[in-house]
Amino acid sequence: MSARTSPGTSRPSVRPTLLVLGTDPLPRLGRLTGRVRIEYADESTLAERLPHADVLLVWDLASHAVRRAWPGEGPRPRWVHAAGAGVEHLMCPELTASDTVVTNARGVFDRPIAEYVAALVLAMAKDLPRTWDLQRQHEWRHRESQRVAGTRACVVGSGPIGRAIARTLKALDVTTALVGRVPRTGIHGPGELDRLMARADWVVSAAPLTAETRGMFDARRFGMMQPSARFVNVGRGQLVVEEALAEALSKRWIAGAALDVFQHEPLGRDSPLWSVPGLIVSPHMSGDTVGWQDELSAQFVELYERWAAGKPLSNVVDKKRGYVPGH
Amino acid sequence: MSARTSPGTSRPSVRPTLLVLGTDPLPRLGRLTGRVRIEYADESTLAERLPHADVLLVWDLASHAVRRAWPGEGPRPRWVHAAGAGVEHLMCPELTASDTVVTNARGVFDRPIAEYVAALVLAMAKDLPRTWDLQRQHEWRHRESQRVAGTRACVVGSGPIGRAIARTLKALDVTTALVGRVPRTGIHGPGELDRLMARADWVVSAAPLTAETRGMFDARRFGMMQPSARFVNVGRGQLVVEEALAEALSKRWIAGAALDVFQHEPLGRDSPLWSVPGLIVSPHMSGDTVGWQDELSAQFVELYERWAAGKPLSNVVDKKRGYVPGH
Repeated sequence: MSARTSPGTSRPSVRPTLLVLGTDPLPRLGRLTGRVRIEYADESTLAERLPHADVLLVWDLASHAVRRAWPGEGPRPRWVHAAGAGVEHLMCPELTASDTVVTNARGVFDRPIAEYVAALVLAMAKDLPRTWDLQRQHEWRHRESQRVAGTRACVVGSGPIGRAIARTLKALDVTTALVGRVPRTGIHGPGELDRLMARADWVVSAAPLTAETRGMFDARRFGMMQPSARFVNVGRGQLVVEEALAEALSKRWIAGAALDVFQHEPLGRDSPLWSVPGLIVSPHMSGDTVGWQDELSAQFVELYERWAAGKPLSNVVDKKRGYVPGH
Repeated sequence: MSARTSPGTSRPSVRPTLLVLGTDPLPRLGRLTGRVRIEYADESTLAERLPHADVLLVWDLASHAVRRAWPGEGPRPRWVHAAGAGVEHLMCPELTASDTVVTNARGVFDRPIAEYVAALVLAMAKDLPRTWDLQRQHEWRHRESQRVAGTRACVVGSGPIGRAIARTLKALDVTTALVGRVPRTGIHGPGELDRLMARADWVVSAAPLTAETRGMFDARRFGMMQPSARFVNVGRGQLVVEEALAEALSKRWIAGAALDVFQHEPLGRDSPLWSVPGLIVSPHMSGDTVGWQDELSAQFVELYERWAAGKPLSNVVDKKRGYVPGH
C-alpha cells in the first residue's frame, strides 16, 4: 500500500517508496538518504514493483518498460519523473488517463544541445568532415567554405531546447525562425513550416515526438528544401522518415544532414545510414555534456523536495500533448 | 617612367600602370577598365616589370617574390597592396625604408576566420573528429562531451581578426581575454600572456608574424597550459614551434590542437604533423569563404579609387611593425 495515499495523513506516515528504473551509472540520490526508501528495478522486475511505489524515477530513458508495465486500475505511483526531455517512451493511455503526475528533465539539455547544433552547423559550413578525410590521406586541398552569418535557419520545436538553439544560432548572426505547435509571439505555427523550410539554409528538428510530429520530415518536405540546404535532427528519430532523407541526400536534393537520433537506437552496424553520402551520424549524445547525469540527479532531488513538502511540481508534462507546455 | 610621378601634373598624364603578381584565378578588375594599364607578372617576370609599375597588387600571397625583386633605389611602385592580412612575405628593408605605401586586406577575413575558430572550438568540445572516426567504423559509441559556455579562452592578436574571434567566442558565452602588443582598454599586454594561457581552456593564435611573435608558442608555453586545454592557430605557421606542439600533444600536456597554418605550406605529404594524435590539420582556409576573392578584388578597386582621386588610403600597414596599427 502506498505510503503517500494512507488515509487521514497529509504527510506520509512511513517513508515513501521511490522506485528507480535504470542501470549503472545509477542516479546520485545521497541527499534523500533516510527520508525515502529506494528500490531499483530493471525491465524484468518493473511490473512487479510498480504497484508498491509512490514515485517512479525513469532513469533509463531508452526503455519502453513503463508503458508495458503500467498498472491499469490498481495501485500505482502518484508521480513519474523522466530523466530526459522526451516522454513518448513511457506514455500509455492508462497513464495519460490517470491522475499520476509526469515530469521531465526540462532545462538540463537546452544549452548543451544548442551548442551541439551550432557545432554541426559550423562544421558543415566549414567542411570539417572533408578536412578530416583529407587529413587522413595526408592531402593538402584548399577549399572555399561558407559564411554562417547571414544564412537562414528554421528551427522546428519551440520548447526550451528549440529556443536555446535559436538563441545560439542568432548569436552567430544566423537569421532564425522558430516553428511551434501554436503560433505565438516570436513563434510561427505549423502552417508556415513549408514556406520557412523552403527558404532555409539550415532546418533543425528539435520537436517532441507526438502523433502530429511523427514522420513530419518526409520526402515531400526534403524535396522542398534548397539544394544547398542542410538538415539536422536532435529531437527524436521518429520525426524523420529516414529512407526519405537518405534518398534526398543521395539524389542531392539537399547538401547535407546530421542525425543524432534514430528510429532504432543504437543504430545497428549494418544500417545503411552509416554511409549515406553527406550524412553525419552521431550516437544520441547532443545533450550529454560532462556531468549531465549529476545534473539530472540534482534536478530530480530538487523536484522530490517539492513533492515531499506538498508543493506543486515544476516541469509537469501535459500528458495528452506529450511535453511540458510553453509559457 | 612612372605616370604618377610625371612632373607638373597633379593627375597622371597617362594611364597608371597596375602590376598584378598572381596566377589564376586573377582578380576581377573590370571596373578599372580603360582607366589603368594592367600588366601581369609571375615570380620570374616580377623583377623586370616592377620598376615600370605605379601600383603593385600582390594577389599571390604565398609568394616571396616581392621581397626578392624589390628595386633598391631605382623607380618603383608608389603603392603596394597585399590581398591578404599578413604582409611578412613581401617586406624587405628597402621597401620598409622607402616612401612606398603598403596596404592590406584588413576586414575581409575577420568574420570568416572567427566562425572558423568557433567551428574548431565547438568541434573539439563536442568530440566531432572522433564521431567521424566511429561513423566510418559503423560504431555506435556514446560519449560525454563538453559544454563550451563558461569555459575560458585566451585570444592572442588584438587586430580585427583577433577581435572578431573574441566577439564570436563571447557570443557562445566563452569568457575571453584578448592579448595584444600593447595593453589598452579591453586588451591585455604580452606580460599577461603566460598567466592567461595557464588558465585558458582555449588558446587561439591570431597574431601577425613579426620579430616579436615568431616562435612565441613554444615548449615552455605549451607546458604551461592545462592538460584539458586546446590550442588553435589561424595566424601564421611561424608563430608556433611545430615540433614543440607535436611533443606537447604526444605527451598529453594539452588535450588537443588545430593548425590551419604551417611553417611550410603546403604541408608535404610526408610531414609528421598529419598524424599527430589530437591534432586537426587544415589547409590554410580559415578565412576563405565563398566569394572571398571577389571581396578582395572589390576591396582593391575601392582602394584604387581613393588612390586615383588623391585621397588618403585606408588599411595602411605600419611597415616597421608589419601590420595595420589598431585604433
